[in-house]
Amino acid sequence: MSSLPNNLKKISLFLERLPGIGEKTANRLAFYFLRLPDEDLKEFSKNIADLKTKTKFCRICFNLTEKDLCSICDDSKREGNIVTVVETVLDLLSFETGNIYNGIYHVLHGKIDPLNHVGPDDIKIKELIERVKKSPPSEIILATNPDMEGEATAIYIKNKLVELKKNFKITRLAYGLPIGANLEYADYMTLKKAIEGRNKF
Amino acid sequence: MSSLPNNLKKISLFLERLPGIGEKTANRLAFYFLRLPDEDLKEFSKNIADLKTKTKFCRICFNLTEKDLCSICDDSKREGNIVTVVETVLDLLSFETGNIYNGIYHVLHGKIDPLNHVGPDDIKIKELIERVKKSPPSEIILATNPDMEGEATAIYIKNKLVELKKNFKITRLAYGLPIGANLEYADYMTLKKAIEGRNKF
Repeated sequence: MSSLPNNLKKISLFLERLPGIGEKTANRLAFYFLRLPDEDLKEFSKNIADLKTKTKFCRICFNLTEKDLCSICDDSKREGNIVTVVETVLDLLSFETGNIYNGIYHVLHGKIDPLNHVGPDDIKIKELIERVKKSPPSEIILATNPDMEGEATAIYIKNKLVELKKNFKITRLAYGLPIGANLEYADYMTLKKAIEGRNKF
Repeated sequence: MSSLPNNLKKISLFLERLPGIGEKTANRLAFYFLRLPDEDLKEFSKNIADLKTKTKFCRICFNLTEKDLCSICDDSKREGNIVTVVETVLDLLSFETGNIYNGIYHVLHGKIDPLNHVGPDDIKIKELIERVKKSPPSEIILATNPDMEGEATAIYIKNKLVELKKNFKITRLAYGLPIGANLEYADYMTLKKAIEGRNKF
């Protein structure tokens, strides 16, 4: 590393802080930057410098946006009566890439995780309750992850929503075998859920 | 992707152009940038913007540097009598991280690769010949990669060096089993080389 020029070394050290990038990959990426056109680097540089000042939370759903409302809440073609609650913006993106859902979202920005000192007040649960109290949708889909913390978060939110005594459906994503899965390699928890949730065929 | 704010989307699209980074990873990295302190992003941004203007080739060995000479050629403690010829700066870094070599280098910036239209004049071979003609070292280690193009490049350079009729040793890196390897999984070319190059024990 000491034989790298200082500027390359700094870029490489920065990249090493990113998740999943080790020293070798960071070096390789830094070298790759060198081969890109200067105007592309200048533009990337500008976007990075402006990133934090330009990016805000959507006033309604806490998705990321450069404006007051995110592109989803601002889209009149979306079904505003269905709200899907997700842990992160990346989860939201998974739904969006598939083009499988036309409702709107609420991004919690985390999950209840006592071991990591994340309580209900550290994520956007209060904001969700306020939001649906003010304008109740017809359905709220709890789409936190199917792990222990995600499950606990879903249960906590469900209880809070029931307390509101509003007339909306509260649903949870289906559990079961993923498409393309092999029964032989499926874990028994997934199989158990797949049997419990079996449908008429 | 369309639900990402524009600035994040641009950063993600830029990152996707880097080797080994797909759409999902690019998104994840872009989000990670958001969580870093603003001053770190500003500094990274500045380094990126200055990268191409600040980085030059070392006048002697074509390693990368911000000055006229790279840190290796500029180091009086290095053994200037031994020159190792490598394909890329990343190869040079591999030698340097191990702290196993105290000579100097010559970086070719490529290998002779006719299928990809890279001929001897497209890499720094002429510069190597000129350099060792002017000040002949005692040894030149040809450390191009042990693949077809690297081998061809080494042979080409060797012939050019022999033509100079100078009194230096020309050597090539040893072939053999890598440390920690398992004979069971070794390819037969490596095994052949390991037998041919066997040493007294």
